Amino acid sequence: MIDRLSPIESAAAGSLAFVSHARFAKSLSVTNASAVIVPPALAAQAQHIAGRIVVDDVYHYFAHLTQYWKRLFAPVSVASGIHPSAVVAPTARLGQHVSIGPLAVVGDNAVLGDHVCLGAHAVVGSHAEIGAYTQFHPRVTLLDGCTVGQRCIVHSGAVIGADGFGFAPHEGAWVKIEQLGHVVIGDDVEIGANTCIDRGALDDTVIGNGVKLDNLVQIGHNVKVGEHTAMAGCVGVAGSAVIGSHCTVGGGAVVLGHLTLADHVHISAASVVTRSLSKPGQYSGVFPLDDNASWEKNAATLKQLHALRDRIKKLEQP
Amino acid sequence: MIDRLSPIESAAAGSLAFVSHARFAKSLSVTNASAVIVPPALAAQAQHIAGRIVVDDVYHYFAHLTQYWKRLFAPVSVASGIHPSAVVAPTARLGQHVSIGPLAVVGDNAVLGDHVCLGAHAVVGSHAEIGAYTQFHPRVTLLDGCTVGQRCIVHSGAVIGADGFGFAPHEGAWVKIEQLGHVVIGDDVEIGANTCIDRGALDDTVIGNGVKLDNLVQIGHNVKVGEHTAMAGCVGVAGSAVIGSHCTVGGGAVVLGHLTLADHVHISAASVVTRSLSKPGQYSGVFPLDDNASWEKNAATLKQLHALRDRIKKLEQP
Amino acid sequence: MIDRLSPIESAAAGSLAFVSHARFAKSLSVTNASAVIVPPALAAQAQHIAGRIVVDDVYHYFAHLTQYWKRLFAPVSVASGIHPSAVVAPTARLGQHVSIGPLAVVGDNAVLGDHVCLGAHAVVGSHAEIGAYTQFHPRVTLLDGCTVGQRCIVHSGAVIGADGFGFAPHEGAWVKIEQLGHVVIGDDVEIGANTCIDRGALDDTVIGNGVKLDNLVQIGHNVKVGEHTAMAGCVGVAGSAVIGSHCTVGGGAVVLGHLTLADHVHISAASVVTRSLSKPGQYSGVFPLDDNASWEKNAATLKQLHALRDRIKKLEQP
Repeated sequence: MIDRLSPIESAAAGSLAFVSHARFAKSLSVTNASAVIVPPALAAQAQHIAGRIVVDDVYHYFAHLTQYWKRLFAPVSVASGIHPSAVVAPTARLGQHVSIGPLAVVGDNAVLGDHVCLGAHAVVGSHAEIGAYTQFHPRVTLLDGCTVGQRCIVHSGAVIGADGFGFAPHEGAWVKIEQLGHVVIGDDVEIGANTCIDRGALDDTVIGNGVKLDNLVQIGHNVKVGEHTAMAGCVGVAGSAVIGSHCTVGGGAVVLGHLTLADHVHISAASVVTRSLSKPGQYSGVFPLDDNASWEKNAATLKQLHALRDRIKKLEQP
Repeated sequence: MIDRLSPIESAAAGSLAFVSHARFAKSLSVTNASAVIVPPALAAQAQHIAGRIVVDDVYHYFAHLTQYWKRLFAPVSVASGIHPSAVVAPTARLGQHVSIGPLAVVGDNAVLGDHVCLGAHAVVGSHAEIGAYTQFHPRVTLLDGCTVGQRCIVHSGAVIGADGFGFAPHEGAWVKIEQLGHVVIGDDVEIGANTCIDRGALDDTVIGNGVKLDNLVQIGHNVKVGEHTAMAGCVGVAGSAVIGSHCTVGGGAVVLGHLTLADHVHISAASVVTRSLSKPGQYSGVFPLDDNASWEKNAATLKQLHALRDRIKKLEQP
Repeated sequence: MIDRLSPIESAAAGSLAFVSHARFAKSLSVTNASAVIVPPALAAQAQHIAGRIVVDDVYHYFAHLTQYWKRLFAPVSVASGIHPSAVVAPTARLGQHVSIGPLAVVGDNAVLGDHVCLGAHAVVGSHAEIGAYTQFHPRVTLLDGCTVGQRCIVHSGAVIGADGFGFAPHEGAWVKIEQLGHVVIGDDVEIGANTCIDRGALDDTVIGNGVKLDNLVQIGHNVKVGEHTAMAGCVGVAGSAVIGSHCTVGGGAVVLGHLTLADHVHISAASVVTRSLSKPGQYSGVFPLDDNASWEKNAATLKQLHALRDRIKKLEQP
């Protein structure tokens, strides 16, 4: 009898766990899991465990298993139908089987596809559109005229379609450039909690199919993010950057504006991308952590680095 | 016939576009725009384009044009009057022509100036004040006793007046220092989505006239930001920092607490300000991005930099 | 007569101020404060001030004083009882003296302890639990099945229990790993505005007693934060990191995933923790700020640092 999914380290009787790589193989010998998912190469080492599922791509299998498990045992609690406290404009067009949670607001001429599910406190602006089967967790804001595709998941606090940051300097003050574009989000996109995606200044900000954005990510105006690119928490992408498909951006990284990143570029966490990258690969730029005293010495010396180079040059002269 | 504003690169028949600098001049020869805004120096190169607007400050002209365009073709959808679902305290004082969106909350003794417009789900605390013509997009939170000036724009998810982060250590735990100050925001300020401005500990946190803050910016307690300073997305300013007027802070930069930045200081994106800056100018501090293998070598060597300096010194000795 | 608490620098007649360290002693000679709190070592220097409170731990005393002051003069404005506009599930269990603000939502089977106070627009998911005397400021989201302990304070916009960021790569796309764990938050925890704490993938994300998190902090799935650890604004902690007790993490710092930090580890602001730290102490890693021209030179040279080391080596050869 399996009654939960567990990490292999904390698995107990009743747990189904997984081991995807040989380097975690020793966990198999000590686990209390009742069943495990392993690749063929580890099947022998799992012989002593009562239940064994042997598959080639363990992690992928496990992902589907979590989806199955959630459907069965932890379905999202949704309002069924339209909660009476929601404020839905009469001109909004709702598909079949739409759920709208308590105190949600749906604006004029908004369009919600079939099976769309809005959590409590969602705000959907006028003329905004949401594709079929997309789910908004509580307190998502989708602003006027922006569109989200099908089967997307948007987490609480996300703001889609706020104004981009555009001002013309004039006599020491800033004159607002109204942001006239929208945000266009593809299918199968997931957007994290409190993440912001700004509308374009003139054209649209575009998020491709299958993109995954973690929490507290900032996407500036006019940015294009290619399909199946993933960004971890706290990433900032400045305006008009064009990011390829199948890229990954590590947590806390910053991509400056007006840059182009090729497909399959991978940025390490907390790195700052200051130039376009036309070749796939892994890129990094982080000051190494050290004990404070060592860091202070090295950081101080770093400010003389160029001068040190000149001194080396001089030493090299015959 | 002009039916849209477009970037020069994607302009088509019906587009009005602009070219502000000579370095983009070659776009003029290939654009399909029906009309362009150019400076006098580029007027000749725009001869072949049907419509030409020649002005000295193209970008400033364009900014005003976007405002005109928005008023005409994409006005903000606002509740007219007070939506019946809003919860407005009887003691709140509302000016003329105030709009309050669905499910907004206005607390006791709050004061809203003429033409204030609150989007859906706004929360205005008790004794908070909002100046005339200020607009809150949906889901802005202005907490008790805080004030926002006239003609401000606050974007969705912004939180103005949460407690500053203040605790006294005592026997291994943290004792809360109640935050008794407020936030005072000047006129013509724009505040981005999900940005946070904390209330002061004793005195107030103060944001000067004309300041522009992008999304996901953090302003700590007691901070003072001078007039017309602009900060891009994901900037963090720690408590009690004093930032001058007409400064710019690039995206993802961090300003440590209790520092003073002079007027006209400009901080590059992702840089960390660890000391006060008394001279205007551009300041930077970012580890340069590199391919991962090169970065690893240089980062490892960086931890020996101070020792390398000593070795150079030794080599220099006769 | 004391009518306000003030910083020593801006104290006026009627102010009660404090000076905790000898290095601020000179403020005593010029202050207009009517009364001061000082340590015994500074009592003599405060002789001329009408009111003097002499205590060993000035800052701790002051913290309690702010709490006293707030209770008396600036109590939080709370709905008393359940506001009629709130949507509270009939199956929710509410303790004694619970306050629920306007337009809050409390889900099925949620449990609110005695004296819990929810601000306007709070969303409490189904089966979520909140301990006695905990206060949610307006617009906090606590998602299904997550728990918050007693005497906690959660600020506006915080999202507790959004999905962790977990996907299995498969044929160029990302397959969602449903996040089946919860968030478990201890007692006396404070959580800042727009901060996000993700639910665990299988096990729970756990925040220990007495932890203090500032605004816009990101806590990934499965993270464990030990008791009385404090993190300043904009910190990001990636998934499955284990952070000890009594740690501090400076603003904007990033802790990578699957790392372990010992108790009493202190991370400087904006530093990036890329490896586990088993020894207490202060750790740093920040590129030093410089004027832009100097930075450019040093940053360019940094990309040749490893090569420079080799040149030094060569020079050292006899």
